Amino acid sequence: MQKSIFYHAGCPVCVSAEQEIVQLIGSDRVEVVHIGEDRNRIDEAENAGVKSVPALLTPNGQVLHLNFGASMADVKG
Amino acid sequence: MQKSIFYHAGCPVCVSAEQEIVQLIGSDRVEVVHIGEDRNRIDEAENAGVKSVPALLTPNGQVLHLNFGASMADVKG
Repeated sequence: MQKSIFYHAGCPVCVSAEQEIVQLIGSDRVEVVHIGEDRNRIDEAENAGVKSVPALLTPNGQVLHLNFGASMADVKG
Repeated sequence: MQKSIFYHAGCPVCVSAEQEIVQLIGSDRVEVVHIGEDRNRIDEAENAGVKSVPALLTPNGQVLHLNFGASMADVKG
């Protein structure tokens, strides 16, 4: 089964959403990527349609923006 | 296990998010509530912290606003 990818940037909103998502979906079914630290994955996230973090990219290629922590412009600084 | 509740109002963004969430979490683990039709549940949603739809209320009582379909003011008309 393909995993979802949870993109975040370490913000409080991100951490809170991450806990919920991991609990709901299961930690084995979601890859967590901190794009504030793992900056070479910012392009990948943007190409997938991520406009803000936290966001969940599902195995279907859909992006669910969860609440609002920071825009991608903020992440890129 | 307690269920999550997915609140929506039938908008295209809502329907798309619903399909993803049901697939990720499992239809037996999420109750889907159309508050545009089931209007007596609007208060319950607002009291839980739902500001816009689609939104997922987790068993922990956290609200995840998923993308943005409509504000609660729009839903209430």
